[in-house]
Order: sequence, then structure tokens, then C-alpha cells
Amino acid sequence: MKNFTHCVPTQFAFGRGAENDTGKLLKAQGATKVLIHFGGGSAVRSGLIGRIERSLEAEGIAYVELGGAQPNPRDTLVYKGIELVRREKVDFILAVGGGSAIDSSKAIAHGSCYDGDFWDFFCGKAVPQRTLPFGAVLTMSAAGSESSNSCVITQEATKTKRGLSSELNRCRVAIMNPELPMTLPPYQIACGATDILAHIMERYFTTEKEVDLIDRMAEGAMTAVIRAARIAVKDPYNYDAQAQLMWASTVAHNNTLGVGRVQDWGSHQIEHELSALYDVPHGAGLAVVFPAWMRYHMHKDVMRFAQFAVRVYGCEMDFENPEATALRGIECHEQFLREIGMPITLKELGARAEDIPAMAAKTRKNNPDGTTGGTFPMTAQDIEAVLRIADR
Amino acid sequence: MKNFTHCVPTQFAFGRGAENDTGKLLKAQGATKVLIHFGGGSAVRSGLIGRIERSLEAEGIAYVELGGAQPNPRDTLVYKGIELVRREKVDFILAVGGGSAIDSSKAIAHGSCYDGDFWDFFCGKAVPQRTLPFGAVLTMSAAGSESSNSCVITQEATKTKRGLSSELNRCRVAIMNPELPMTLPPYQIACGATDILAHIMERYFTTEKEVDLIDRMAEGAMTAVIRAARIAVKDPYNYDAQAQLMWASTVAHNNTLGVGRVQDWGSHQIEHELSALYDVPHGAGLAVVFPAWMRYHMHKDVMRFAQFAVRVYGCEMDFENPEATALRGIECHEQFLREIGMPITLKELGARAEDIPAMAAKTRKNNPDGTTGGTFPMTAQDIEAVLRIADR
Repeated sequence: MKNFTHCVPTQFAFGRGAENDTGKLLKAQGATKVLIHFGGGSAVRSGLIGRIERSLEAEGIAYVELGGAQPNPRDTLVYKGIELVRREKVDFILAVGGGSAIDSSKAIAHGSCYDGDFWDFFCGKAVPQRTLPFGAVLTMSAAGSESSNSCVITQEATKTKRGLSSELNRCRVAIMNPELPMTLPPYQIACGATDILAHIMERYFTTEKEVDLIDRMAEGAMTAVIRAARIAVKDPYNYDAQAQLMWASTVAHNNTLGVGRVQDWGSHQIEHELSALYDVPHGAGLAVVFPAWMRYHMHKDVMRFAQFAVRVYGCEMDFENPEATALRGIECHEQFLREIGMPITLKELGARAEDIPAMAAKTRKNNPDGTTGGTFPMTAQDIEAVLRIADR
Repeated sequence: MKNFTHCVPTQFAFGRGAENDTGKLLKAQGATKVLIHFGGGSAVRSGLIGRIERSLEAEGIAYVELGGAQPNPRDTLVYKGIELVRREKVDFILAVGGGSAIDSSKAIAHGSCYDGDFWDFFCGKAVPQRTLPFGAVLTMSAAGSESSNSCVITQEATKTKRGLSSELNRCRVAIMNPELPMTLPPYQIACGATDILAHIMERYFTTEKEVDLIDRMAEGAMTAVIRAARIAVKDPYNYDAQAQLMWASTVAHNNTLGVGRVQDWGSHQIEHELSALYDVPHGAGLAVVFPAWMRYHMHKDVMRFAQFAVRVYGCEMDFENPEATALRGIECHEQFLREIGMPITLKELGARAEDIPAMAAKTRKNNPDGTTGGTFPMTAQDIEAVLRIADR
């Protein structure tokens, strides 16, 4: 096991009606003027924003609002938010939504404490040193941004999607009511579950040996997510399935299941190019990229892929031919993704084969030697080969 | 799944040589005068205390020291610690040791911010409202006190052992080097592993339905602990086995594996009487009590005990006779405990059958109706019956 540091200071409030405690929770954080940042009108129409407003009013906390957060959140809205925070002297930002509202809230929080252009943090020109406190009322189980150290923003003009990892990215408060995602279309629930699984898998596929504790906890979590996703997609009003998915979204991405090991994240980097170019949901993009990535790399560590097949999908181990077991695990994963309604080919996603070389070239090379991914470092040629597998 | 709140703000620094960062980590917490609280002379002789002192000196942090923490930590030492903290104007307490040093540090921290007798917090007369900041350099994987919300102290004069649950009980910093427990006797390593497992099992055996995510993560963690304990007891210098156990000690008791469910804790309450009366290691007491508790209660939820048997010990499910599977799981657990050198009967522990009624009568009745335990509430008669099973 590798040395590590770990700290998730987020205060979680989980369960039915959790959003009604927003005012009390934010008051305990010292909030006096809150920016409520959300997406479309559904949060207003459903009455959620109203419940949050009343909860803040009951504690004497003032607020302003900014809607318009979209999937693959844009820099343009972040600039608006920063201006609003400064003008209104906001001292706490509350995202209401999924990863998009939370990620743009994080960028607004950092940017409003910085004299330069917030994009500096995302293109590697600067490192954020401080931020405004922020929290979230989660409405979608997916990105895990409610307690992760990551934040992803898309520069609209250049269609460049970039992530920022920083301990400043941790929410102070995460308010999680599993009833809220019940009204989402099944396709979005499935995209969320795919994202959750991918967050665990990016950590699970590692070259680090002797990481049995986290391996087994991760396998348990993946098994539970697969089970809950199958239920929730067919029966979105099943509270318990939604509850497993919502808590899994947090556990999957706050590094509870990633400490002490090399992680990959190559599939995420490739997916960023897909969703930046075609504006597809992140989860759908991952459903296409991850199985292709698995097929391309499985020969480099057959036993780990066989372990995944046996422990997560209950495949029988073929002791004479572990490769067959490894491959069977990937097929089971593809079958699961199909079952919950996910695309698994570029065509189904609406992506074009002729864009593959450009996407491969543009994918962020985040290793010092110009490769992508921690467990199995990839050149642009490797990335192209992964995308060709997805073009089936 | 039940509604819950959860917050583990502890900053973890884990791995080889982690204690050399003590000074930096405590400086970041604002410490200027530290009480280093440890157990016997072994921490001094091994050079550990010296490394910590040098690390503090390098950051210009002053310190005073208090040794003498013992298993089943005593109130008498807590009073000494409180006096020392006040006299020396200490602003941070650093425990160096296992659960005993950490628990007495917690009690000292709370007591030094309170005008009355600190025992008020343990006998239910008062609730702690504030505390001094404290942290730990862990030398033993067991109690999980490095990030749990619990603290257990024994009142020496009355041989009364009482626990306090409070969010104020969370360490600010936990410094965890898996090399440090390598020099412990195998018996102590086994006691620690038994304690870790018991912390997961107290949470695992629940009446709450539809808690699949945490069930499966807990099953994975138990499987890994059992595997690592078998290795570490035979080969204490196996870094990876010690690393799994050390991180498991934290995960097992900071409620990562307990959110959203009714928990039991009856076995812990019974064990407190055993170790208060005979001064046996907490882990050894749990090795005796828990299997007896399982045998007494398994008929109330056969399927959950069968699930434990199948998923944790790999027993084959007997679909015609689930009780046989449930029982087989308990036998496997007893066999595992024997294998790592634990006692499983009162006799082996040196406890006397004639003390059973008194222990049963004294066991803390922590339910409003005067029963003990959350999942399967027990009267004094039930507790006596559990102890009779252990008297074999």
C-alpha cells in the first residue's frame, strides 16, 4: 500500500426531508448571505428551491440566486457567478443540483477569492490558495462532487473541458435526500450510476499490490451500485435503491475507495473530449469509453480483470484460461450498461469516427512524459486505439 | 435506510515514516504547546517519542509529557492530565499509542475545558460542550479511537467502565505508520484484529433492511481483516498485512460502515464488565462474548447470520436449512479466533462463572426500557444467558 493523506471534512445530512435543515446547517457554518446556484426551472417548479428559501429565512439568512447551471458546466456562467458574489457580498455558496451546479459553485467560490482569471486554475497557470465556503443540496446521484476534491469546467469558446483537483474543492456541507432524484428520467439515473461505477473503477484498476481492504470494499460497493441501478432505472420511486445510489455517489468519489494506490483516470480524460465536443452526458460518454479501455488494457493485468469479473459480476473463475474470465467480466459490464439503457458505442452516442484522431490528440496528457492515465499510461496512439474499439 | 448525519473531519497521514511529519501537521492545527501522552516506556525506548520530539522541535513547538496510559484507561490518570494541561497551558494533546492513550487524551481534552468533574460526562451527568484540540500517533491497530466518536474510561475505585459518544471525540489529526505495531506481541495484534472485527460486526448485525451498499462494503472489510490478521499474527513484520489492519481499525469505527442503520453494541457493553472486573484486553473479552452473543441471537434473524456466513467466511448456503449455514458461520468465526490465538470461553479468559449474575446485573442498560443493545435488546436475564453460553 502506498503512503497517503486523506481528509473529508464534509458534514453530511442524509435522508428524507434533509433539505429542510439547510438553514440550520448553513447557520452552523456561519453563513449570513448565501448564493443559491441551481440549474433549470425544475428545481423551482418542484418546490425544492422554495423549501430551501424558507429554511434559510427561518434562520435569518439572506440569499440571492443564480440559475442556469447545465451539464458540462461552462466558464461563462462561472464569470457571472463571481461577479454576483462580489456585488452581493455573498459569504456562502449553496449549489442545488448535481455535479454541474456543484462544480460551477466550486469554481465561483475559488474565482471570487482570486484577482486573476479563474480559468488559470483549470489550465494550470495558478493554484487556488483560498476559497469561499460552499455546500450542496444534491438532486442527482452521479458526480460525487458533494464531497470529492474535484471540479470540472468547460471553456465554452474552445470546447475545452478541464478538471481541477484540490482539497479546497471539498464541500462544507452536503445535504442528501434520496427522494429528490426520483423525478429524473431513467436515462439520467442510468448515466449517474455509470459515473458512480466509473469513479470506483478508475481507482480499482491499479498496479498497486496488497491493497486487499480497499479492493474488497470497492468490490462490495460496485456490486451494490449495479444492483441498485437495475432497480432504480425501472422503479425510480424505490427509496432504498435511490438511497444506495446517492450514498454510493459520495463514497465512490471522495477517495474512501482510493487511498493508498496508483489510480488511472485515463477513461475520464478521454471522455472529457467526447462530452466537450458532442455535449453528451458524462455518464453516457463513460459507458462508451470504459469498456473499450478495459478491452484494450486487460492483457496487461489479466488477473486483476479476472478478479473484477469474479467478485463484482459473480463470474466463475476459469482457472485454465483466466483471460476468458477477464473478458467475461467486461462482457457482463457491457451487458449491464445496455440493460440500464446506456450506449456502449461511439455511434450510439452520436460521435463520429472521423473525429477520433483529433480527440486522441486533444486528450489531456497529464503525465510528465506526455502520456495519459496512471495505471496504464497511454500515448495519443493508445487513446486512438481505445476509441477505435468503441467505434464498433 | 435510516436518515443519518456523518462527519469525520480527521486529517489522516498514513504510511511509512508518517510520525516524522508530526510537527508540520500539528503546526497546521495551530498547536504551540503540546502534551504528549503515551503508555509505558516502550515508546521511549523504541525511539518513537524521540522522533516525535524532534519533529515538534523542528517546527518550534514546545511540549510536555505524560506517560502511564494503560489498557482500560483509568480516571486517575485523566485527573493528572487535566491538572498538567492547566498548569502548563497546553493547547494541543497528542496521544502516542493505541486506544488507551487516545481515550485518556480525549477525556483530558474535554475535562480541561470543564469546571466540574470530567467523570460527569461518563456517568451521564453532563454533556461536553467544548474540548481542546487533540490528535494521535497510532501504535496499535485496534480501537479505532483515532477517528471514532467514542471514548471509554474506567473509574478505578469502583471498577466501572463507561463509554462516551460525542462528535467532540474526533481527532483533528491521525498519524498512522503500519510499521509501529510490528513489535507488538502476536497476542496483542490478535486482540486488535478481534476488536476491529467486532466494531464492524456491531454495525453489521442490524434489523434495518435495504442497506446493501454498507452491508457489502462491511463484508469486504471483514474478509480483508480476517485475511490480514492471519498473516500479521504469524508474520508481524509483513508491512502490507499491518497496513490493511491499521486502515481497517479506522474504517471499522468511524462509522464509514455504520451509517443509515440500527446498530447493536450489546457485546461491547457486556465486555466492558468483563474487562473492568478482570482487567483483560478488550479484544480478548470480545472474542469470548461475541460468538456467544451470535449463538444466542441467531434464531431471531437467521438469514442475516447466513449472509454473514456465506459472504464473509465463504460458507456454502444450505438452502434447505439456512440455520445450518448461520451456525456454520459462527463456527468459522470461532475457528478464526482460535487460529489467531484468542480465547473463546470465560475459563480461558480467567473469568469465573460465579461472577456472571453480578456482571449481567451491572452491564449498562442503555435503552429507555432498561435493556441493552440496539438490534437485539437484552434484559439482564438475556445477558446472563449469553455469558452462560461463553462459560463452556
